[in-house]
Amino acid sequence: MAASAVPVSLAEKISRLHDLWSPRVVAELNDVQFKIVRFQGDFVWHRHDETDEAFLVLEGAMTIGFRDREVELAVGDLFVVGRGIEHITRSAGGCAALIIEPRGVVNTGEAGGELTAPNDIWI
Amino acid sequence: MAASAVPVSLAEKISRLHDLWSPRVVAELNDVQFKIVRFQGDFVWHRHDETDEAFLVLEGAMTIGFRDREVELAVGDLFVVGRGIEHITRSAGGCAALIIEPRGVVNTGEAGGELTAPNDIWI
Repeated sequence: MAASAVPVSLAEKISRLHDLWSPRVVAELNDVQFKIVRFQGDFVWHRHDETDEAFLVLEGAMTIGFRDREVELAVGDLFVVGRGIEHITRSAGGCAALIIEPRGVVNTGEAGGELTAPNDIWI
Repeated sequence: MAASAVPVSLAEKISRLHDLWSPRVVAELNDVQFKIVRFQGDFVWHRHDETDEAFLVLEGAMTIGFRDREVELAVGDLFVVGRGIEHITRSAGGCAALIIEPRGVVNTGEAGGELTAPNDIWI
């Protein structure tokens, strides 16, 4: 599944994603997946001990909260959360983002809970 | 260098990159680098036998040529070239793109030549 067959229009993919906190795979690079996600409100505090996690904002704005600070991301901003660093994603007004991380990473990390989403669902 | 200290504005980074065919690292995710590149005209035919390579167009438009077809990418389009697949990147009107691939990949692959750029230069 690695090589693209056709160009992936991120705007077109986002326009068809309506569920919140429900990552959808749009492309793969080696063992890394590109996933779009739409969300509003607060996620859960969690961490990923085995991998970094990158966010690129596609629509709206988001906050990544850490225990000692917050980072505000607007459209076109990229941010990499380091492995093992506890964080929470938030968006008051709503947001669509591209997540880049290895295949198999659970969205809620070690925290689990009701916002845990299934993996490997393509859009 | 993996975790970001501050958000990376791709537009701001691109605005400061004027050299053509000169990739600049803007972020890292595990062993993967996010690099911006500005180019116009034709690159060289080449392949990367060890890795896939992803392109996300940030400004302008680009073509990825394969031996049997061409793919046209506009702003916001993502495309993954599979490992070992010979390709050439082109842009008649000029383009800025985000390249996502493992650290250490040589831009001209096995082909080499005068457009071969040094790696690991950050912007």
